[in-house]
Amino acid sequence: MNTFDLIVKNADIITASDRYHGDIGIRDGKISMIAAGLNAEDARQVIDAAGRMVTPGGVDAHCHLDQPSTDGSIGADDFISGTRSAACGGTTTVIPFAMQFKGQSLQDAVADYHQRAEGKACIDYAFHLIITDANPAVIAELPAMIEQGYTSFKIYMTYEALKLSDHHILDVLDAARQLGAISMIHAENDDCINWLTERLKKQGKTAPRYHALAHSPIGEREATHRAISLAELVDVPILLVHVSSRAAIEQIYWARGQGMHIFSETCPQYLFLTAEDLGIDDSFHGAKCICSPPPRDTDSQNAVWTALANGTFTIFSSDHCPFNNDATGKKLHGENASFDLVPNGIAGLETRMPLLMSEGVLKNRLSAQRFVDLTATAPAKLYGLYPQKGTIAPGSDADLVIWDTQTPKTISSAMLHTNADHTPYEGKEVQAWPAVTLSHGVAVWGNNQFHGAAGQGRFLACAVPFPSEG
Amino acid sequence: MNTFDLIVKNADIITASDRYHGDIGIRDGKISMIAAGLNAEDARQVIDAAGRMVTPGGVDAHCHLDQPSTDGSIGADDFISGTRSAACGGTTTVIPFAMQFKGQSLQDAVADYHQRAEGKACIDYAFHLIITDANPAVIAELPAMIEQGYTSFKIYMTYEALKLSDHHILDVLDAARQLGAISMIHAENDDCINWLTERLKKQGKTAPRYHALAHSPIGEREATHRAISLAELVDVPILLVHVSSRAAIEQIYWARGQGMHIFSETCPQYLFLTAEDLGIDDSFHGAKCICSPPPRDTDSQNAVWTALANGTFTIFSSDHCPFNNDATGKKLHGENASFDLVPNGIAGLETRMPLLMSEGVLKNRLSAQRFVDLTATAPAKLYGLYPQKGTIAPGSDADLVIWDTQTPKTISSAMLHTNADHTPYEGKEVQAWPAVTLSHGVAVWGNNQFHGAAGQGRFLACAVPFPSEG
Amino acid sequence: MNTFDLIVKNADIITASDRYHGDIGIRDGKISMIAAGLNAEDARQVIDAAGRMVTPGGVDAHCHLDQPSTDGSIGADDFISGTRSAACGGTTTVIPFAMQFKGQSLQDAVADYHQRAEGKACIDYAFHLIITDANPAVIAELPAMIEQGYTSFKIYMTYEALKLSDHHILDVLDAARQLGAISMIHAENDDCINWLTERLKKQGKTAPRYHALAHSPIGEREATHRAISLAELVDVPILLVHVSSRAAIEQIYWARGQGMHIFSETCPQYLFLTAEDLGIDDSFHGAKCICSPPPRDTDSQNAVWTALANGTFTIFSSDHCPFNNDATGKKLHGENASFDLVPNGIAGLETRMPLLMSEGVLKNRLSAQRFVDLTATAPAKLYGLYPQKGTIAPGSDADLVIWDTQTPKTISSAMLHTNADHTPYEGKEVQAWPAVTLSHGVAVWGNNQFHGAAGQGRFLACAVPFPSEG
Amino acid sequence: MNTFDLIVKNADIITASDRYHGDIGIRDGKISMIAAGLNAEDARQVIDAAGRMVTPGGVDAHCHLDQPSTDGSIGADDFISGTRSAACGGTTTVIPFAMQFKGQSLQDAVADYHQRAEGKACIDYAFHLIITDANPAVIAELPAMIEQGYTSFKIYMTYEALKLSDHHILDVLDAARQLGAISMIHAENDDCINWLTERLKKQGKTAPRYHALAHSPIGEREATHRAISLAELVDVPILLVHVSSRAAIEQIYWARGQGMHIFSETCPQYLFLTAEDLGIDDSFHGAKCICSPPPRDTDSQNAVWTALANGTFTIFSSDHCPFNNDATGKKLHGENASFDLVPNGIAGLETRMPLLMSEGVLKNRLSAQRFVDLTATAPAKLYGLYPQKGTIAPGSDADLVIWDTQTPKTISSAMLHTNADHTPYEGKEVQAWPAVTLSHGVAVWGNNQFHGAAGQGRFLACAVPFPSEG
Repeated sequence: MNTFDLIVKNADIITASDRYHGDIGIRDGKISMIAAGLNAEDARQVIDAAGRMVTPGGVDAHCHLDQPSTDGSIGADDFISGTRSAACGGTTTVIPFAMQFKGQSLQDAVADYHQRAEGKACIDYAFHLIITDANPAVIAELPAMIEQGYTSFKIYMTYEALKLSDHHILDVLDAARQLGAISMIHAENDDCINWLTERLKKQGKTAPRYHALAHSPIGEREATHRAISLAELVDVPILLVHVSSRAAIEQIYWARGQGMHIFSETCPQYLFLTAEDLGIDDSFHGAKCICSPPPRDTDSQNAVWTALANGTFTIFSSDHCPFNNDATGKKLHGENASFDLVPNGIAGLETRMPLLMSEGVLKNRLSAQRFVDLTATAPAKLYGLYPQKGTIAPGSDADLVIWDTQTPKTISSAMLHTNADHTPYEGKEVQAWPAVTLSHGVAVWGNNQFHGAAGQGRFLACAVPFPSEG
Repeated sequence: MNTFDLIVKNADIITASDRYHGDIGIRDGKISMIAAGLNAEDARQVIDAAGRMVTPGGVDAHCHLDQPSTDGSIGADDFISGTRSAACGGTTTVIPFAMQFKGQSLQDAVADYHQRAEGKACIDYAFHLIITDANPAVIAELPAMIEQGYTSFKIYMTYEALKLSDHHILDVLDAARQLGAISMIHAENDDCINWLTERLKKQGKTAPRYHALAHSPIGEREATHRAISLAELVDVPILLVHVSSRAAIEQIYWARGQGMHIFSETCPQYLFLTAEDLGIDDSFHGAKCICSPPPRDTDSQNAVWTALANGTFTIFSSDHCPFNNDATGKKLHGENASFDLVPNGIAGLETRMPLLMSEGVLKNRLSAQRFVDLTATAPAKLYGLYPQKGTIAPGSDADLVIWDTQTPKTISSAMLHTNADHTPYEGKEVQAWPAVTLSHGVAVWGNNQFHGAAGQGRFLACAVPFPSEG
Repeated sequence: MNTFDLIVKNADIITASDRYHGDIGIRDGKISMIAAGLNAEDARQVIDAAGRMVTPGGVDAHCHLDQPSTDGSIGADDFISGTRSAACGGTTTVIPFAMQFKGQSLQDAVADYHQRAEGKACIDYAFHLIITDANPAVIAELPAMIEQGYTSFKIYMTYEALKLSDHHILDVLDAARQLGAISMIHAENDDCINWLTERLKKQGKTAPRYHALAHSPIGEREATHRAISLAELVDVPILLVHVSSRAAIEQIYWARGQGMHIFSETCPQYLFLTAEDLGIDDSFHGAKCICSPPPRDTDSQNAVWTALANGTFTIFSSDHCPFNNDATGKKLHGENASFDLVPNGIAGLETRMPLLMSEGVLKNRLSAQRFVDLTATAPAKLYGLYPQKGTIAPGSDADLVIWDTQTPKTISSAMLHTNADHTPYEGKEVQAWPAVTLSHGVAVWGNNQFHGAAGQGRFLACAVPFPSEG
Repeated sequence: MNTFDLIVKNADIITASDRYHGDIGIRDGKISMIAAGLNAEDARQVIDAAGRMVTPGGVDAHCHLDQPSTDGSIGADDFISGTRSAACGGTTTVIPFAMQFKGQSLQDAVADYHQRAEGKACIDYAFHLIITDANPAVIAELPAMIEQGYTSFKIYMTYEALKLSDHHILDVLDAARQLGAISMIHAENDDCINWLTERLKKQGKTAPRYHALAHSPIGEREATHRAISLAELVDVPILLVHVSSRAAIEQIYWARGQGMHIFSETCPQYLFLTAEDLGIDDSFHGAKCICSPPPRDTDSQNAVWTALANGTFTIFSSDHCPFNNDATGKKLHGENASFDLVPNGIAGLETRMPLLMSEGVLKNRLSAQRFVDLTATAPAKLYGLYPQKGTIAPGSDADLVIWDTQTPKTISSAMLHTNADHTPYEGKEVQAWPAVTLSHGVAVWGNNQFHGAAGQGRFLACAVPFPSEG
């Protein structure tokens, strides 16, 4: 009789705080036992992980899948291709956004997203709510949303179709405080962006590279300070998403030193790209890298690395939001469209974990434990999926990555599993990639092949992260 | 033959940097000569200032006189009573605001104010423009306004009827940069105030003291950071008016340390009042002290003193804006009106300089030179009235204050020359008061009596403060 | 056949990052297995931990046991009583100091300490080296010391008999960098302390409470900045021990924001005592609480709590250094001795973990995981004892604490197991205490009784914490 | 009958706060009258300054003249050549240092300096005391020194022969507080310098350029923080001399924001030189620019400019301390001497004011008034020479500079009046130079010629700057 469906033997097991050698016994899709030594005969299957790091499967808490646009563009990935791509890069849980259209109820918004995900997701998924209309009726829906497992509220301070006024932000934050939910804030000053954009366009500066000027670090810093202030007023934790610049990071240091509960996130594009990737001349090529906030300069890259290593950033997400380089996406308004008409977003789900493992852990910029915390444990905790997700412990889902750090790879669009027709990291060498990704104890990636299937992923209802605040 | 109309002899002359003994010869309303010794026989009149400090007449760069309201309230002072009160307290130049109504042209706004001032002002005056509607036509008017001597633009970040969006603020700041003008910003976050007000009112907290909670230092700090950021984006100097809290001051330190050109102002109410003056219970009495930002706590008072002494604050103004304690003013909406319906503002023109001389200079918190800079020289420079106003130098207008620092006085409403029916400083003892105030070489205050007359004051066209920016 | 010597069943298992329910199987003194469920019949013994937190046994990385004095005083605890006391409070590893006398070789210093510990220690122990004489011969000894398992160097910036010059500190830090060792720095400005002490004594201010004035937060902040600067110059990580004041903490925030590797420690006395515990009058009673740095004020307490919760402090230690309240200790120089002649130090080994669990975790000031990291995991990692010590993982020593959080206790000297005749926390109520402490899988504390024995503790050779720096 | 000895007509008069047009009447070496217009016939002599700025003669508060060395080197300038050079560059008062040798009484030290100055100084002079031995007898001399007009105490934190311990610094600061004197602190960490120097030398890095590495900004920042801390402990104002780096400046911002009274000074070498002037290869040529602290990088230059303009720096001095490029000076230990054996110091008295006028005022980096304050008024006030020196006011000494800003000059050693055989600014173009320098109403420089004479300068007894502290 087999006690285990699978044993991962001789693993270099890594959690957000620990690193030790052991065997992991899996049964019924869950980790049932971890031991200094397990008997291989007790399992139907054994994977020998000797010499290999084994980490929790990634939780990518910031990605956009099959999200309808307000401008007619069509995102490259739906739930099949997006989650497939995630799995092949070591991510076993995604938390995309269910966006409310203005005027729409939140209940309708999530119903729509369930339809989009059902039967398609290859790995498990939960939903954040994007609240674009914070009228009293919407605020009144929130307790029910929490009950149903939607416990994180995304707030935009920019984008005409999405942004909330400071007053409405305060309303949402206050509801979050009462419910124990977490609010995620995209902090850029909308008026600054628009004003700079108008000025640049008047000067004929419409090439992709001017996107980086229009989205000035000053505007990001300002909105960061404002978001922190609004949270301080309400006395509620928030998460600042995709922080990109030294100036914004300095606001976070300041706030944390004052004792405020400010969580924050950064993304691969702020470590591995700079504004120069948007172009050093007026060619349209850089449109591929247009995202907001834009990649900054090497000084900000250094500040981001420091804040990743020293614990200032809480989580590391992809902000996956790819558009093809055609009329459905980057060229929606043609080959010479002004930067402000180019759909914002880049692909990142599949490369997120290999890039950070390779450039962060293997180059000693951060510990393997910090890697686990940033990519899996902290997002699982912050979004109420822990301990089912985000760690290697008895009782947790057997979502694991077994790493190969011996085989150099050169990233290319061809090798990735997204539907996107390009990657911003084309040609970049990495030293680490998942050898195997397990979801519920079953390999969805291995031998350089995707083994998962649409519909295998399950919806995850999130718990509230701050129940004591309720 | 008399060379001088007047000699002020044996003066302890104080400028913004100097302090020395000398005689001041005045002819035709101007200072014509300063000497170690002048011959008394050369003058028609001599005032012996032996043992007395002589400072430039005050320039009060922040006061509201006969300004129409948007809520039906009536300010206590018109140009006669306001300027009379100023003169009796040592101020010889006022710069009240010409407020644009939304939809009104700036040209019409200043025309209206000239009518209000003409024939009434007892001392000289200039106008700031309050820009409440920054549409392109208004921006297009600005060069002409500059030509006519209106070189400072007041911007509100709060008050529904007055506030500009960040985008419009950027538009005004950009025009100011091109024209070499200075922008004055009232920095409080409007949404924070409204949100807190709504919450307090829901809780039945409507007494005057809740005004201090609604106008949180967090909201002031946030708007201060935002104003600084907008100025940084445009690369233009600004002045932050009536800064009240330690938190806001810390933003100014930070900005100046970064090399930004941030000027700032504070007012007597942030040195001599605290939130407790708005009431420690729910009585309506504290309505008299409702102003925005509100007085804070002793910690902020200390921070204000430090920043006055160390050069962080540029100017010290009254923000004079008195309302009577009746149905035209503080009780516009009755005796039990909610704090947010009480007209904002307190009297301060007459007490500004005696309070600072007494509590600041005589108590060694700041030097006499710093006093002169804060109350006269710096505002004259910043608003383009220098060197005609704001100093003691040959060629300057003979606007002088001869100080009596030997006679203690207890401030009372009865002794003041405003039309306001109360003073927030009732009962406060001061050790300094002008013995004589000279305007254009003529005593408008002396022997504890007002000697001026309506219509003696002249309109002053301001130069641009930053011509090199033009 | 029993697979396990002991199973701890139904545990609420807590590591530095995780919290989950499970059973812990122990064999041969080590954790051999952790599982969602283990069969009770497989063990010789079972402890049911249902409803109880189980944490790693504490690692107290800052304590003084049987350390010879330079003034003739005699510490209250030797290795028997000190480690017994530790075990009864949930600590299973201590790292006391092997102090070099000036002129002594390090080899001799540690040889002496081994004699003091051998046959006496009831729990495991390692040694830090106190380097008081950093001459070239001593520096030359360091590689051999590292080989023998002494990988942490304590540096004093104060105390005449112990302190190093900045130059010698640089020498030690440079050696630490080359060897991958960690340096621990007591940061107080010696000259400031002496100068203030002389002045206070001239004024007749000799009572214990003046100790807090002599050890000014300014002197601590200065030395903290200096220590950080010296480490920055050498480019090496350091640990600042027993940080007590807001001013010093602000230096650490600053340094970490700059990307420097500054670890830091605080102690219970900075959370639970204030300067008032040294006396509010001139009685000698407060001598019991004399330690350096001294307890500060509530503002600093708040800053310490914030920095504990937000990850700024790395470890939480006792700085156990008790002296009896008699002629061997606090009264070495009599009942009315000047504060500077009173031996410095208080008891803390036994109360460290219960106090932080009770006031920190149970009162929601910090998470249970943070508690584990601060009290066990982080010190084990920093001092090269991990993963043998400091966590709950297969392969680690079975050093565990099973917590009772249902039974309120009032701390009294009588209930503690130190030889010290008093505790600074006399009368303080706590809501948490170890129900059982396991060392190598064996209960050394349980049923409110000590079950350990002298000599059971083993010496631990430490690995270097920063091998990649070597 | 002539009322005036001299009238300077049509001057663009500049004080530390004012700028206006007027005529300056001079009699008996003093300014007797300033007027909008004076009658040219009333004067024996008239200088028409039409179109020219007239500023107070410079007060150079940091220069070393005929100061005996501790290493056998001989400074290039004695009191004749040094003061001649000063006068030709617009400086009319110097405050060199009377250095106490260890063991020497202060009385003996100043007696020696009076001998060195007497009959030689071409312009007025006062003395700072360098206290190198702060034993109780020396502290006891201080009241008498104050009485005699030596009211500023220089303290070194580095240089073996000069430095004081922190304890002795506290002793001097405490005396300064009681006497109302000002302490000047050279803030560099001596141990850091020595440790780095030893390491560099071991690596064979002995060329002049390594001086900049040995005197790290970290060591300057550390000592700056320490000096501030010691002053805070005593609660006394201090002046930080020759601040060179952004890191040190940030400490000053911080301290001033906390309300501490920290004055500070910078020098031309930190605006106009960088570390590259010490050499970009191993040639000895850069020895000419060896001074301490060394010139830094452009980032620090920018920080120095910002702090000059925004009022953070109090004074701007030369730190004139020239050595010839021969065996008496820079080559004391030969052409290939290690950097630490090269005498420290550069020439600067003559170029100080033209450089700052040209690069600062004429290039709009700072106002003409700020120039006057930095170069004349503030040092005169801080060192108790005001209002005799440092301003343009009736009763003040007629020490004036009439500026020529129309004639470009290229600085060369040949055109300067120091005895030094080189200038660090060789080849630098300036747009401003004194047309005339008046000392006591008499031209000592004019028509590009020195008109002064040895012995014309008078000793100035300084008043205490902070009498209220006494």
